[in-house]
Amino acid sequence: MSAEKKNLSTVSEHTGLARFMAACEHRQPDATPVWFMRQAGSTFGAYRKMLEKYDVLTIAKTPELSSQVALFPIQELGVDAAVLFADIMLPIEEMGVELHLEPEVGPIIHHPIRDIQAVEALRTPARDEVTPFVMNGIRLIRRELEGKQAVIGIAGAPFTLACYLIEGRPSRDYRHAKAMMYSRPDLWHALMEKISTVIANYLVAQVQAGANVVQVFDSWVGSLSPSAYRTFVLPYTQRVFQAVKATGAPAIHFGTGTASLLNVMTEAGGDVMSIDWRMDLDTAWERIGYERGIQGNLDPALMLTSWPVIEENMRDVLRRAANRPGHIFNFGHAMPIGSQADLLRRLVEAVHEQTQR
Amino acid sequence: MSAEKKNLSTVSEHTGLARFMAACEHRQPDATPVWFMRQAGSTFGAYRKMLEKYDVLTIAKTPELSSQVALFPIQELGVDAAVLFADIMLPIEEMGVELHLEPEVGPIIHHPIRDIQAVEALRTPARDEVTPFVMNGIRLIRRELEGKQAVIGIAGAPFTLACYLIEGRPSRDYRHAKAMMYSRPDLWHALMEKISTVIANYLVAQVQAGANVVQVFDSWVGSLSPSAYRTFVLPYTQRVFQAVKATGAPAIHFGTGTASLLNVMTEAGGDVMSIDWRMDLDTAWERIGYERGIQGNLDPALMLTSWPVIEENMRDVLRRAANRPGHIFNFGHAMPIGSQADLLRRLVEAVHEQTQR
Repeated sequence: MSAEKKNLSTVSEHTGLARFMAACEHRQPDATPVWFMRQAGSTFGAYRKMLEKYDVLTIAKTPELSSQVALFPIQELGVDAAVLFADIMLPIEEMGVELHLEPEVGPIIHHPIRDIQAVEALRTPARDEVTPFVMNGIRLIRRELEGKQAVIGIAGAPFTLACYLIEGRPSRDYRHAKAMMYSRPDLWHALMEKISTVIANYLVAQVQAGANVVQVFDSWVGSLSPSAYRTFVLPYTQRVFQAVKATGAPAIHFGTGTASLLNVMTEAGGDVMSIDWRMDLDTAWERIGYERGIQGNLDPALMLTSWPVIEENMRDVLRRAANRPGHIFNFGHAMPIGSQADLLRRLVEAVHEQTQR
Repeated sequence: MSAEKKNLSTVSEHTGLARFMAACEHRQPDATPVWFMRQAGSTFGAYRKMLEKYDVLTIAKTPELSSQVALFPIQELGVDAAVLFADIMLPIEEMGVELHLEPEVGPIIHHPIRDIQAVEALRTPARDEVTPFVMNGIRLIRRELEGKQAVIGIAGAPFTLACYLIEGRPSRDYRHAKAMMYSRPDLWHALMEKISTVIANYLVAQVQAGANVVQVFDSWVGSLSPSAYRTFVLPYTQRVFQAVKATGAPAIHFGTGTASLLNVMTEAGGDVMSIDWRMDLDTAWERIGYERGIQGNLDPALMLTSWPVIEENMRDVLRRAANRPGHIFNFGHAMPIGSQADLLRRLVEAVHEQTQR
């Protein structure tokens, strides 16, 4: 190998993109890649300033704005990936559902889907019709990053989106959704069928627009038993992951409160399983199998403490990851609103430094 | 054995009390005992009528009223145990904390405990000073039941009560509590020390007043990792269970979202572990060990469906319990407000019938 070639390859191995893709594809990266769920947000003054002029949904739907927001954490924190700035409910609008983002509450649907008429009325748009502003946003992020960091596309998983559609608002117990699931399986399956088609299309379109990897958020799945998951969720989530697999892009499968679901969720798909802090990372990885990657799992509540406490807990996560290839460092769930940029930056640096190979 | 004696013993074996205690003490009962978390409440017209005259806290603090409410499900549903009608936050008032029950929100504390002054100001009342109205309520219930059903005393576990005290209101992520736990362990341990002393006293006093068994509610513990539980919670919960053990009364240890915590929680104590529906009952029991009992674990959301769906899922729970001694049938968490009395009654009857030995 010539000196020039060797140099080139060294350079490219040391980008955030190379690091991130290596972990996703289970090769040993030069250091453990880092990003944070909800990293693009209120931590940054420039974003808070943007919010004075536009509401969140307008920002998410304007590629020039959403791509800027997605890039703040690259510039300010040094993370290895930019994540699409979008609510997981966005593709739902394309199904013909009116959506309203209520500050401090979340997405509200004025006419929740609770009968066969409502399910039948849902549209399943084709791939090139799904939220063009999202795809243009991804193109802009990808162009700006110039191959230095990864672009993460995102979507809600069928179960979590079905819960939103049926409940109409964030819920603690998903009682309407579960009542439909248990007592109207016909309706439930028809709804999941439509949602998974749309989500599969949505994710494939994101990869085609330039997303290097996608993360599927099953944020609410932790409310199910393993047998309910197997009957009512597995086939649909599986279909979504199969569609992504066909593109060649790796996929991250995220959930919280999934200690009893981990095995059956792994069956549903994902090159990397994202776990929350409720499980010890080593225990979870052993269950998932070392041929898959793992993402996580610092307790986000730690961001409200101080650096020595954060560092101690970060070391514990890294100790449990034990330098195995396939670890992506992240919180176990979204970072708290108001997390301090200097602490986050220090965390990114420390993970990179501690894991340099 | 004389015919008379045999007859007597048969009668006593067929009471709800005998059934309940047998399950707690790991002897084979004549049928699986049943009760429901939140069974004393809005399901009954007589309770709703009472609410027109008194607020919830007044009812809980008036033995003549609270004991009536506790008896409704005995009369109307045929459950095997009456449970004390009290908020788990009641003993907190005796520590000098002002408490306010907000409808549809829950207990609110106007001055959350967040510094050393606040922790030091907390009182730790002696056993005979803790909520005399609770003890009198238990005496009344016990007298009315005439040994036919069990009386269950209740208390919040130290972690859950500490979260309430620090957050000041129900929370989704317990961020203030966890921030204190992680970054001010001195403060945290001082607080847990005081709370566990008060809770131990409170439960022993309930047993002395006539509770046959107690249930300790660690409703929020599912937000912790196993290692955080071991460091910050285990010693205190253990102390509470040790105090109950010394009285000879069996104890039930309740939590939700505890799939990754089950082993370390079992270490903390409890003759019976109460699990939610997120775990399959057979898997959980195997982990707990068959020398302990198990309580649960029907998904309470099922009460919003119809009898055939409830029955099918009840059969699944019983199949997983596999007729082992030590199963108490219950929901995995509190039953939903507005559950129908006729469905609940049918459920009690069906469990008894299906498990007759």
